[in-house]
Amino acid sequence: MTVPTPEDALTSSAPVPDSALADEGYRAAVVDLLAAVAYGEISAFERLAEDAKLAPSLADMVELSTMAAAQLGHVVELRERLYALGVDPFAAMEPFRTPIDEFHRHTAPADWWEGLVKAYVGDGLAADFYLEIAGLLDESTADLITRTLTDVHHSEFVVGRVTKAIEADPPLGGRLALWGRRLMGEALSQAQRVAAERESLLDLVAGGVGRPGLDLLEMGRMFTRMTERHNQRMGTLGLAF
Amino acid sequence: MTVPTPEDALTSSAPVPDSALADEGYRAAVVDLLAAVAYGEISAFERLAEDAKLAPSLADMVELSTMAAAQLGHVVELRERLYALGVDPFAAMEPFRTPIDEFHRHTAPADWWEGLVKAYVGDGLAADFYLEIAGLLDESTADLITRTLTDVHHSEFVVGRVTKAIEADPPLGGRLALWGRRLMGEALSQAQRVAAERESLLDLVAGGVGRPGLDLLEMGRMFTRMTERHNQRMGTLGLAF
Repeated sequence: MTVPTPEDALTSSAPVPDSALADEGYRAAVVDLLAAVAYGEISAFERLAEDAKLAPSLADMVELSTMAAAQLGHVVELRERLYALGVDPFAAMEPFRTPIDEFHRHTAPADWWEGLVKAYVGDGLAADFYLEIAGLLDESTADLITRTLTDVHHSEFVVGRVTKAIEADPPLGGRLALWGRRLMGEALSQAQRVAAERESLLDLVAGGVGRPGLDLLEMGRMFTRMTERHNQRMGTLGLAF
Repeated sequence: MTVPTPEDALTSSAPVPDSALADEGYRAAVVDLLAAVAYGEISAFERLAEDAKLAPSLADMVELSTMAAAQLGHVVELRERLYALGVDPFAAMEPFRTPIDEFHRHTAPADWWEGLVKAYVGDGLAADFYLEIAGLLDESTADLITRTLTDVHHSEFVVGRVTKAIEADPPLGGRLALWGRRLMGEALSQAQRVAAERESLLDLVAGGVGRPGLDLLEMGRMFTRMTERHNQRMGTLGLAF
């Protein structure tokens, strides 16, 4: 997946030292973030394994299933870090289950193509968001998030399959372009829900002693960058936006 | 999984040289075997990912899903070898889809516990069978089959969970013991179906120039060993047989 590195995203004038984890509020926010990423990957596994059943061939089924397995592979390291931070990883994931499950319930693909676009565009959006936030974190946490969200190989598969399908059936492009906009809308609405409920994450974004925060202008720039990258991905798939 | 190594299984007095692959009949049998193992792992992935939904907790769900992902991970190497043997891996798998899918259709677990026992006992049976046959193969193919069927870590999870559950609820043990016998019966019936349809595999078992085969006595011993290992696994789970 073409995900930005933290270098492309938010840049803090002074990097957050690892010692920031001694601060209880910051630590709670890191736990929340890692747990959200971990549950996101677990549910991505479930959903991709399910969507793989829509595959037109065994080879395609195996390809999407392999993407599913890769997502789950990232969870191991996130669980270990959550343990190391002194929390039960699965208990930490609880607050994020409903919003993430809701996102998937509202965006269940109607066919194989919608499933592929969701895998590429939806996971890309989530990765963008977490990587932007990583710019506000200590290096060790930021590195972990970057590592667990970077997966280059499989996007070639999705891009190749979708662009060919649209070439063969142009009206499909119109339908999938609408689908991409809907994915963006649903993702934003669930993200807002999480932000409203998790004070720790709001505090993180606001900044603290020795930690940079985001003012409204920077927040706006962040959403602009995310929208641009979303549009880039849609363009890569050959979808008008 | 406690799977036997080829050393425990059939031992050929003279090992089959890698050059045996020049023989068309032998090569066809190797393609069949690798394709059967590969499709077995793919369908194991599908089934475990599905059975994971029965998990009583998110942690258990992730554990079974990780077993699913591990099965799929083995497929990469099998696909590469099939390509190297000059065949389309997915076309080679076609003849094995119906019998393996039928096995899973006939043994859909009614609950989480049946799913766990199936993961341990069913996959153990399949691994035993392929590893026995590996004793009749050239070293390079035998090594590949051994590598792709050996997975020690996760059996601890199944054994731990099942033995504790039976301790807490002894009647569950009786039900799961019956279930284990049914898995054995279904596996044998589908294996016979494959053997009857794939001449290449019968030729393999019969042996050829420079390749050892099995006479009836050795065939009988092979089934005895497989039954013994099945009973061992049932015993490890705390299931009477």
